[in-house]
Amino acid sequence: MINNETINPKDFTSYLMKTVGLPEAEAEQLSFPLKRMRYEKGSILLKKGERCNHSFFVEKGLLRSFMLDESGKEQVIQFAPENWFIVDRSTVYFSDPSESYIEAIEDSEVVFINEDFMCHAAEVSPIFGRYNDKLLHNHIRQMQKRINLLLGATAEKRYLSFIEMYPDLLLRVPQWMIASYLGITPESLSRVRKELAHKNFKPS
Amino acid sequence: MINNETINPKDFTSYLMKTVGLPEAEAEQLSFPLKRMRYEKGSILLKKGERCNHSFFVEKGLLRSFMLDESGKEQVIQFAPENWFIVDRSTVYFSDPSESYIEAIEDSEVVFINEDFMCHAAEVSPIFGRYNDKLLHNHIRQMQKRINLLLGATAEKRYLSFIEMYPDLLLRVPQWMIASYLGITPESLSRVRKELAHKNFKPS
Repeated sequence: MINNETINPKDFTSYLMKTVGLPEAEAEQLSFPLKRMRYEKGSILLKKGERCNHSFFVEKGLLRSFMLDESGKEQVIQFAPENWFIVDRSTVYFSDPSESYIEAIEDSEVVFINEDFMCHAAEVSPIFGRYNDKLLHNHIRQMQKRINLLLGATAEKRYLSFIEMYPDLLLRVPQWMIASYLGITPESLSRVRKELAHKNFKPS
Repeated sequence: MINNETINPKDFTSYLMKTVGLPEAEAEQLSFPLKRMRYEKGSILLKKGERCNHSFFVEKGLLRSFMLDESGKEQVIQFAPENWFIVDRSTVYFSDPSESYIEAIEDSEVVFINEDFMCHAAEVSPIFGRYNDKLLHNHIRQMQKRINLLLGATAEKRYLSFIEMYPDLLLRVPQWMIASYLGITPESLSRVRKELAHKNFKPS
């Protein structure tokens, strides 16, 4: 049993209760045995070419995943603040070498989630199985939106979509990383921010 | 029972047996009751704003999904030749109005796959449940690759990736649709094709 006082509203047990909808006893039973690690800002949790059998759930801090393009330029794939999962699917689900890097942008505390856990959790709780299925579909839907933005949206529209997706990251992430995520130059991002400020736009 | 003579190597029963790995009896039991429809080339199977509770499996022919951007320009999301699924996730899994259109590029025969089928099939066959899970992860992996190509790859690299993904579509799909899928202009696509021909590149 985890003492109530130790349940951090941002930890994985709380996520299983509040977001997935599991009863407290099931959430604690599933969450308690999981491996947890702390990483300092700048730590690399996964390198391209490595093999890894788990995804990361962020209890505290902020991670990002990125790839290097042919010219060695970083392309940000995803940010993962508290209560987000981050994973390289090539290695976790297909046992290939990782295609991406995962880095801590802030000091972070993460939980390791492997396939054994996912299978066990789905067996223990049908709620978890259904939730996980929904999560996958939602992830695909979000990626489709991003593809559509990359194919046809202005820099401003991409930036507004970023703010909607990651409302609390604007001050936590360097501008060049946001520009990389959006597929625009840092100069374009700077121009968009000035134009929005001129229109008195304030992120809510 | 479906008579063996009627099993088309490209139909859904055969897909369940050969690709998913189900025994013949299970595959027939699952596939036989499903709704099937024929569509003429140019038919719109789903319009933006409509609601729909099923995805489409292509037994014969070729479908595509697309969106309209703010200027009314079509953006091709996906092509679906024989043995592919195509779906608007917003409406099927989240009960929102569809965000995309689905159109038959050729005369096509499709099977309607709804959530009841997916749940039933996963209950009847654990093999199907695991396969479906793998399919979702693979879809996410492919979308991630596409995002990376859109963020940082040359037109040539995008085109070569298209050929790898859809090896038999080069002669079945109009060039402007391929350009739209790749996020490049038809002029760029034409240039890339000429340059590849000059290098004696032949799609295998």
